[in-house]
Amino acid sequence: MVNVGIIGVTGYAGEELIDILLKHPSARIANISAKIDKPRRISDIFPKFKNRIDLVCSEPDLAKIASTCDLVFLALPHTVSMGIVPGLLKAGKKVIDLSADYRFKEAKIYEKFYNTRHTDKPHIAGAVYGLPEIYRAKIRNALLIANPGCYPTVSILALAPLVALDLIDLDSIIIDAKSGVTGAGRKVTENSLFSEINDDFKAYKVNSHQHAPEINQELSKLSGKKIEVTFVPHLLPLDRGILATIYARKKKGAIRKTQNLFTLYKNFYKKEPFVRVKNEGDFPRIKDVFKTNFCDIGIKEEKDAIIIIAAIDNLLKGAAGQAVQNMNIIFKFPEDTALI
Amino acid sequence: MVNVGIIGVTGYAGEELIDILLKHPSARIANISAKIDKPRRISDIFPKFKNRIDLVCSEPDLAKIASTCDLVFLALPHTVSMGIVPGLLKAGKKVIDLSADYRFKEAKIYEKFYNTRHTDKPHIAGAVYGLPEIYRAKIRNALLIANPGCYPTVSILALAPLVALDLIDLDSIIIDAKSGVTGAGRKVTENSLFSEINDDFKAYKVNSHQHAPEINQELSKLSGKKIEVTFVPHLLPLDRGILATIYARKKKGAIRKTQNLFTLYKNFYKKEPFVRVKNEGDFPRIKDVFKTNFCDIGIKEEKDAIIIIAAIDNLLKGAAGQAVQNMNIIFKFPEDTALI
Amino acid sequence: MVNVGIIGVTGYAGEELIDILLKHPSARIANISAKIDKPRRISDIFPKFKNRIDLVCSEPDLAKIASTCDLVFLALPHTVSMGIVPGLLKAGKKVIDLSADYRFKEAKIYEKFYNTRHTDKPHIAGAVYGLPEIYRAKIRNALLIANPGCYPTVSILALAPLVALDLIDLDSIIIDAKSGVTGAGRKVTENSLFSEINDDFKAYKVNSHQHAPEINQELSKLSGKKIEVTFVPHLLPLDRGILATIYARKKKGAIRKTQNLFTLYKNFYKKEPFVRVKNEGDFPRIKDVFKTNFCDIGIKEEKDAIIIIAAIDNLLKGAAGQAVQNMNIIFKFPEDTALI
Amino acid sequence: MVNVGIIGVTGYAGEELIDILLKHPSARIANISAKIDKPRRISDIFPKFKNRIDLVCSEPDLAKIASTCDLVFLALPHTVSMGIVPGLLKAGKKVIDLSADYRFKEAKIYEKFYNTRHTDKPHIAGAVYGLPEIYRAKIRNALLIANPGCYPTVSILALAPLVALDLIDLDSIIIDAKSGVTGAGRKVTENSLFSEINDDFKAYKVNSHQHAPEINQELSKLSGKKIEVTFVPHLLPLDRGILATIYARKKKGAIRKTQNLFTLYKNFYKKEPFVRVKNEGDFPRIKDVFKTNFCDIGIKEEKDAIIIIAAIDNLLKGAAGQAVQNMNIIFKFPEDTALI
Repeated sequence: MVNVGIIGVTGYAGEELIDILLKHPSARIANISAKIDKPRRISDIFPKFKNRIDLVCSEPDLAKIASTCDLVFLALPHTVSMGIVPGLLKAGKKVIDLSADYRFKEAKIYEKFYNTRHTDKPHIAGAVYGLPEIYRAKIRNALLIANPGCYPTVSILALAPLVALDLIDLDSIIIDAKSGVTGAGRKVTENSLFSEINDDFKAYKVNSHQHAPEINQELSKLSGKKIEVTFVPHLLPLDRGILATIYARKKKGAIRKTQNLFTLYKNFYKKEPFVRVKNEGDFPRIKDVFKTNFCDIGIKEEKDAIIIIAAIDNLLKGAAGQAVQNMNIIFKFPEDTALI
Repeated sequence: MVNVGIIGVTGYAGEELIDILLKHPSARIANISAKIDKPRRISDIFPKFKNRIDLVCSEPDLAKIASTCDLVFLALPHTVSMGIVPGLLKAGKKVIDLSADYRFKEAKIYEKFYNTRHTDKPHIAGAVYGLPEIYRAKIRNALLIANPGCYPTVSILALAPLVALDLIDLDSIIIDAKSGVTGAGRKVTENSLFSEINDDFKAYKVNSHQHAPEINQELSKLSGKKIEVTFVPHLLPLDRGILATIYARKKKGAIRKTQNLFTLYKNFYKKEPFVRVKNEGDFPRIKDVFKTNFCDIGIKEEKDAIIIIAAIDNLLKGAAGQAVQNMNIIFKFPEDTALI
Repeated sequence: MVNVGIIGVTGYAGEELIDILLKHPSARIANISAKIDKPRRISDIFPKFKNRIDLVCSEPDLAKIASTCDLVFLALPHTVSMGIVPGLLKAGKKVIDLSADYRFKEAKIYEKFYNTRHTDKPHIAGAVYGLPEIYRAKIRNALLIANPGCYPTVSILALAPLVALDLIDLDSIIIDAKSGVTGAGRKVTENSLFSEINDDFKAYKVNSHQHAPEINQELSKLSGKKIEVTFVPHLLPLDRGILATIYARKKKGAIRKTQNLFTLYKNFYKKEPFVRVKNEGDFPRIKDVFKTNFCDIGIKEEKDAIIIIAAIDNLLKGAAGQAVQNMNIIFKFPEDTALI
Repeated sequence: MVNVGIIGVTGYAGEELIDILLKHPSARIANISAKIDKPRRISDIFPKFKNRIDLVCSEPDLAKIASTCDLVFLALPHTVSMGIVPGLLKAGKKVIDLSADYRFKEAKIYEKFYNTRHTDKPHIAGAVYGLPEIYRAKIRNALLIANPGCYPTVSILALAPLVALDLIDLDSIIIDAKSGVTGAGRKVTENSLFSEINDDFKAYKVNSHQHAPEINQELSKLSGKKIEVTFVPHLLPLDRGILATIYARKKKGAIRKTQNLFTLYKNFYKKEPFVRVKNEGDFPRIKDVFKTNFCDIGIKEEKDAIIIIAAIDNLLKGAAGQAVQNMNIIFKFPEDTALI
């Protein structure tokens, strides 16, 4: 039995972590905390947890967390985690950080896109980017996991076979992504009001979203060459789910006539419990991955072009589900425990 | 041509007033204002008005408003209007106030339910409750209109025939009302976030909503006896529209065997351009009154019980549409101008 | 390990049964069937089940079902189950029928409201109405469970304490219920199109819904006197969830001054794993019971009146969840297995 | 006063035509018809029109239509219009056809994508493609208007300046389009059920939609060279509105350093009443064009790439609004009559 703590439990990802971990036979939620005025029962904050969990949520007390937990999930706003991670690591705790703080190998890129100074550079190098389909071996022994962003998770999984096998022109990648509103966290702004979202649809941060450099870093690593994608996120009038429609040009001569992209994708992901490659003519939809940890991928070839469509639940495979998948890997539990 | 001003133009009702008045052949929007950091073109605040209206919205300047407008709509939060009305009336302007400030004949009730002191008691007596179906004659000569609340509009129209003709037990009235989210105005609170409303439904202010005393006041006037309704409002996951399901017991012997409630309602409202009484077996739905100034009413008799179902668009018949209807009456324009 | 079959697996309740049973450590889905043109893999019908279950759905083959299953869930349209139940019972199988076919002790009422002749009257008497909070003892030994309707489940649980303890006027009960669209099943009609539901809200079958006699039967049994409720269902623009707002008059002198309704409800349900009584001032909302098997109940006293607000997920506590709860009781599994 | 007929009045576009024409001071709806079992008052079919229009909808009677109408709108399913148009033209009526039947200059392309034989080829050549921003001069004297498709309208308006001025690589155009569900018409299919659309998002007809050849035809005409776009439509969980995100590569050397795309677009559309070009950093959203006849266009330059985002209401600028705009042009009414 692993004892886990959740810091930042009042946000969407924290709420989701509780939901998953309550179903986990080998993990026990030992401590929950958040920025909060005064201690409150979690079932008073989220009445849906009444009769299911009876813990009190207080401000994080690192000594107490360290003494009761083996692993700590940080479901905190970006720039907050890096103030907490050093203490937890020093206390010998495993850490899975759902924020962006340790995702970038170059602190400079993080500092530019998150508009802040990185205050814990020494731990960046050791942090493992927690995308199991790419980094499972490293995750097994990681002390600190930088859990990927939601858009990067779906984009990298959709493109990894093409990029790793060098099948497309690297300057041709366009990611047209559409996300439900929980992707932005539980921030109270006029833009997030029901009447601003319902019956509406729009692009935002057009080719300037902070997830673009994260996608670029990981695709570039897979390719060995520098990749800069075009990335346009849009806001859907629904709670959760991301669907990305991705366009790329085939690299001349790279795909043999006899090669079949569907076979190629299915082989690439054949041992993956959470990636489902569709057959020809079938495409993903958000409803199929809603409240699941799956990433569904559909493929369309069109002469020189390839269109990849991929979908995840941004709060599960895009956040809390992937975090628990990483925990399962670290503690050698079956990887899909509590996730299927 | 009437020159009108709108104070509080950045709220939902203000936005709606612009939309209606732009279609009005005999009214010209001469001045728009709101609590605002610095003057902004209204088409920058609401891009949907681009190419349709080119005015600048500033903080209200009463001297300027008085010199350019014949009539002023106040689309302000409750408790703000009463600070502005005296000045406008003194300057000889007609005023249609969409807030609750002048709706209550007893200031004490207002003060209790809106939790504030009334600072302009002298003008309460002269204010006319702007429900044309009941007070049209008074509205014609009114200087100050207290435009009704959204729940009261639909509830009073649904019950007026029964109460005025003394057909039901007055202590039996139950109003189970359901409203879209714009009813609460454009307030930025966690409760109004998309993810708090979408896929959800709940009651709120259970039998303690500030519209109950407004309904009680008007029904009591119609009846000549004191009425206290049971009133439970609920929040629908949609932008606009109210549907109220109302239950009452028939007064023993009051309805003659030969009497038909449908005929009775149709007669009661036969000259009303905006009340549509349904035939037996047909009931209102929000879609039918969406973006219209109509109030649709359906009736179901069941032995000793009467069920009345009524629907309006809370921003039109429940606010801005009714306000323009009142303006039309005051200025002797055809009552449905710009509203149909 | 119990081997279960699901007949009618392509409807909403059938789909939900799969979802629950896949998480059940002591149940195995052995056979799935439905009215279907030709056999299809369930993961082709519902792509969300890809990688989770690999069975083929065919037309029901009773011999095969009988030879592979211990218990059979019937998730069929009303009037279909009664053609199948006799054969399954004869083969010694336990049956949980989610349709209305065996809910009514008087076949005449069923025949009137479902507009058909009952073709299996002999099994009506032995069928147990599967509401565990009322009939748990009988469910333990039942061979045939008539799983309750969604509106009856929430209405009976909300009213049972008041009716069983004789605290209200029995002729005063009004149930104003609001349901998501899956309550009507996966029927393809113009009324169920997205554009007919989205942004809309309406009443339907006003005081003529077939769930009213089911509520009447069960409340009358609890009371020992004949009860006829007023029941008005409404359609919410959301997928799943029911919230009922219920009004009743206190019986004169029945509630002692020292008695507290909250205590009374909490005592009544103190051993129930799936009923959560709210504290004073707190009320249920659909989001809190979404995708759970809970029934949340809130109470408001108002002089002579009592307002009860209750919420369930219509596909779980109102259908598939309650069916599995009944299975757990029959097979002596912990009652909340796979449901929390 | 123009007397107009609407054939196919029970579909979304027909319903919308009524709504617009009721506000039109110079047009009178003289005849409405549709495929219908028996004649019905239009206010019984659409209760929202009660008290607004009192016509009866019957099966189309061409003799009667010809004798009472000057212009006829055909709001019919594809392949039906071509059976009606010859008779109307022969009778000397002006026709605005909202279907695809006369949009394609090559009947073969129509026949391939609409999977039917074209039965009125003689009238194809004379039909004018009713996109006023491109064909206004021809529309003025047209006898038969082929009203454009919704996706083509938004796509062509978004791309026309770039294509007409030869600024982009013609093989680089990718149109990622997202539409509300009314775009598919009022067809009753399982795919269009509320529960299939709500909380979901998906691509459909991936690069095989019948609007792609329509876009290709018109862009090729503007360019003088053959253009084949990549076109992926998606389905949004909302009633009405389309937003298209369009990607293209700049043609080497075609855009001078001193040239500004915003200025270029604004000049291109400077006399257009219904095209609104956004300033740098501002982008369209569906809410801004909801229930309007506007097409909003935003631009983002990114090194070698151009991203154009454009939005319309698919039932107005994408169908009925544009049809009335065309009528206004033909009859020399101010072009925005009843549309603003």
